[in-house]
Amino acid sequence: MKHFISIKDLADPKKAVQTALALKKQGSNLDHSMTADKVLCLLFFNNSLRTRLSTERAAMYLGMKVMVMQISDTGWALEFEDGVIMNADKAEHVKEAAAVVSQYADVIGIRAFPTLTDKEADLEERVLRAFARYATVPVLSLEGATEHPLQALADAMTIEEHRTVSRPKVVLSWAPHVRTLPHAVANSFVLMMQRQEVDLVLTYPKEYALDPEVVGNSKVTHQQEEAFEGADFVYVKNWSSFEPYGQTPKVIDDFTITAAKLQAAKFMHCLPIRRNVVAEDAVLDGSNSLVIQQANNRTYSALWAIRELLTAAK
Amino acid sequence: MKHFISIKDLADPKKAVQTALALKKQGSNLDHSMTADKVLCLLFFNNSLRTRLSTERAAMYLGMKVMVMQISDTGWALEFEDGVIMNADKAEHVKEAAAVVSQYADVIGIRAFPTLTDKEADLEERVLRAFARYATVPVLSLEGATEHPLQALADAMTIEEHRTVSRPKVVLSWAPHVRTLPHAVANSFVLMMQRQEVDLVLTYPKEYALDPEVVGNSKVTHQQEEAFEGADFVYVKNWSSFEPYGQTPKVIDDFTITAAKLQAAKFMHCLPIRRNVVAEDAVLDGSNSLVIQQANNRTYSALWAIRELLTAAK
Amino acid sequence: MKHFISIKDLADPKKAVQTALALKKQGSNLDHSMTADKVLCLLFFNNSLRTRLSTERAAMYLGMKVMVMQISDTGWALEFEDGVIMNADKAEHVKEAAAVVSQYADVIGIRAFPTLTDKEADLEERVLRAFARYATVPVLSLEGATEHPLQALADAMTIEEHRTVSRPKVVLSWAPHVRTLPHAVANSFVLMMQRQEVDLVLTYPKEYALDPEVVGNSKVTHQQEEAFEGADFVYVKNWSSFEPYGQTPKVIDDFTITAAKLQAAKFMHCLPIRRNVVAEDAVLDGSNSLVIQQANNRTYSALWAIRELLTAAK
Repeated sequence: MKHFISIKDLADPKKAVQTALALKKQGSNLDHSMTADKVLCLLFFNNSLRTRLSTERAAMYLGMKVMVMQISDTGWALEFEDGVIMNADKAEHVKEAAAVVSQYADVIGIRAFPTLTDKEADLEERVLRAFARYATVPVLSLEGATEHPLQALADAMTIEEHRTVSRPKVVLSWAPHVRTLPHAVANSFVLMMQRQEVDLVLTYPKEYALDPEVVGNSKVTHQQEEAFEGADFVYVKNWSSFEPYGQTPKVIDDFTITAAKLQAAKFMHCLPIRRNVVAEDAVLDGSNSLVIQQANNRTYSALWAIRELLTAAK
Repeated sequence: MKHFISIKDLADPKKAVQTALALKKQGSNLDHSMTADKVLCLLFFNNSLRTRLSTERAAMYLGMKVMVMQISDTGWALEFEDGVIMNADKAEHVKEAAAVVSQYADVIGIRAFPTLTDKEADLEERVLRAFARYATVPVLSLEGATEHPLQALADAMTIEEHRTVSRPKVVLSWAPHVRTLPHAVANSFVLMMQRQEVDLVLTYPKEYALDPEVVGNSKVTHQQEEAFEGADFVYVKNWSSFEPYGQTPKVIDDFTITAAKLQAAKFMHCLPIRRNVVAEDAVLDGSNSLVIQQANNRTYSALWAIRELLTAAK
Repeated sequence: MKHFISIKDLADPKKAVQTALALKKQGSNLDHSMTADKVLCLLFFNNSLRTRLSTERAAMYLGMKVMVMQISDTGWALEFEDGVIMNADKAEHVKEAAAVVSQYADVIGIRAFPTLTDKEADLEERVLRAFARYATVPVLSLEGATEHPLQALADAMTIEEHRTVSRPKVVLSWAPHVRTLPHAVANSFVLMMQRQEVDLVLTYPKEYALDPEVVGNSKVTHQQEEAFEGADFVYVKNWSSFEPYGQTPKVIDDFTITAAKLQAAKFMHCLPIRRNVVAEDAVLDGSNSLVIQQANNRTYSALWAIRELLTAAK
């Protein structure tokens, strides 16, 4: 694995889950020999709480040093187009920025949300792919335009820890929200579950169909109730429409998650979550919620990824 | 001490001063065994210079790792009310945020200034108390709505270092300012001095009476000159009115501190200080000013508090 | 060297280059004994990418701890005038700020760009000189109003590494830009080259003459083509006019750098660079560009400077 930008970068997604869980057990006893003099640089084009702190925490477990920059606020505006005359608002080209930062760090983590208006730029994962192209060290996605692989790995770890059957039924359900949100978490979750020993069902209003390239042959139903029947895990997330791109059409059916709908299924969400919009309080405060455990596993999915990238880069 | 949010959290305020001063003497020779693999996370809802750098420095002395976030700028807006439908501007509930961050750090430091408009929220110390309720690790106040305990401990240390009599006379004086300021520093100073071997006198214009629950039986005079008579230490601070809450009524008497008023008394202030508004240049540039020493002791009050919190959390 | 704010602070500029290059070779094998328990505090009044990350990286190589603050965003607005009544927007005087931060760190790095409107304040290097005056630890410029010494040292190192003759011809050329830029990089480069074994030629439109105190006896031509003849290194940078101060008068001649103009000369620039405004793509993408190597040497010029400052402060 040269970079970790997509779930598709995982050579063996099942083994990744097992190895990450094994690393989690080691905690403060992790072998630092490969990582102790390495530097992780985290560049944020967008806000963050879990990703930033858990990835920094992961590097600490590995004995690494970390540099964190809110690059959108305190760095220079970057140009990503080739051949352009840079006489407007962009002060530096990613060609220089990526090559330069590569000299100061051994792994570069980058968060760059989608525009949700420029579909082409988003689908080609313009920011992260440009950094990966011009960097001379591995690039780690801290959530890109179309995927959030560290989240999906943490989610798969959480399912593995909490499953009670060998092949659990896992449902991904759309839920309402008040803002226009990306598809990254949902996409990576689908791509990851397609590569795990689970029965995956997707449920969303027909207006909120995900990218067909991501959905592939996965089972889809627009009846949430039908999807939830016998579910072991219900993963919930809002996203905007994919076609037309980045819209939030009104929906008649009530997709808000309630304890009554969930029944015995475990509840999962990547956080932050809007209570009583995405899911009611009773769900989040109930014993079937795994959201805090998922967030904890973010540390270990990051830890696994950093180690993998450094090993491959040796 | 489970959390350190109020001076009232100190089981033995006199011993705290002595222990913190003893730790200060150890400097780089401090025992790291309990702290070396621990992580401190500092979350700032407001700006800071001293608090941020001194607390980070304290953690370095302890061999700890530190993560610093300007959470108000680069995190998600937090909801603190229970049962609310989160369909407005708040993206995450403190229930999730506090529980999640607790998994990445061993102590969480938080700065959250008062609103000065919502008296009820401020008096119940809403932000810090909510974090303390939902966190699973100790919470350290980096200045809350009603108290600034790390400052008051540093102040008591400074008085202990510079006193020339066994029971010094300590005056807290209001002084003018151009903005509407919180009561936190004054409150914690009063609560701390009430628990030390000092004769405490408070002086402020009648419009600027502090919270009666804080003042208790402490001696108060509205005659600054009378208060300053024979004072060993004069602690100066501006604050807004408590009743009505958060106002800045005009005052006739001149409370600005001059060298002539101070005479032989030591001058103290938490900084930042507006020169020639709160106190004239001659006071700050004179040999009786202790403001730089107070700021230095911030490192060691933080160091003491972090150690105490980690010890209690074991 | 007590502080490092100007190239004139270097006692022996040639030896500085040699020592910095020797330190670069040591990499992770550097002796940490003098630096391992030291703290570097970086205060940014302006944005940064290279300077921030390379200086932080340098401190990591030295085993030091680093505290980074975007002081303009998350600290208090500072007053630099003496004797002023601070009843406006400035919350703290540099006298207090510098003395206080000196207690938390062993070296203070500061970035403070010029106003480009207040020539007197800029020429006296008001912010950095005030910090140096009131700090009790060494101050390291991360680019001031009139100089960028860490950049110029890195540039001299790069020339030393890439020269093929004992006394190379080095040209500093102005180039066009779309914003009003400082003179700091150009000034420090000139002052540094005047102290190295090089033949220095400056070329700029007559409207863009640099400060005569900096230019001194250095050779100047307004004919870029003449300057470039036989050049070994062409260092390119935009700056605003010095007289009148901070203007951007229109220029007839085309100073944009092309591969055809450069011929065999090595191309240098401090970055960030606007492609196809300052220099065409072919220059930056060509094999004669040294811009990425210059940025790499920023780590080692910072490393050298931090060690020098700590040695002198012992």
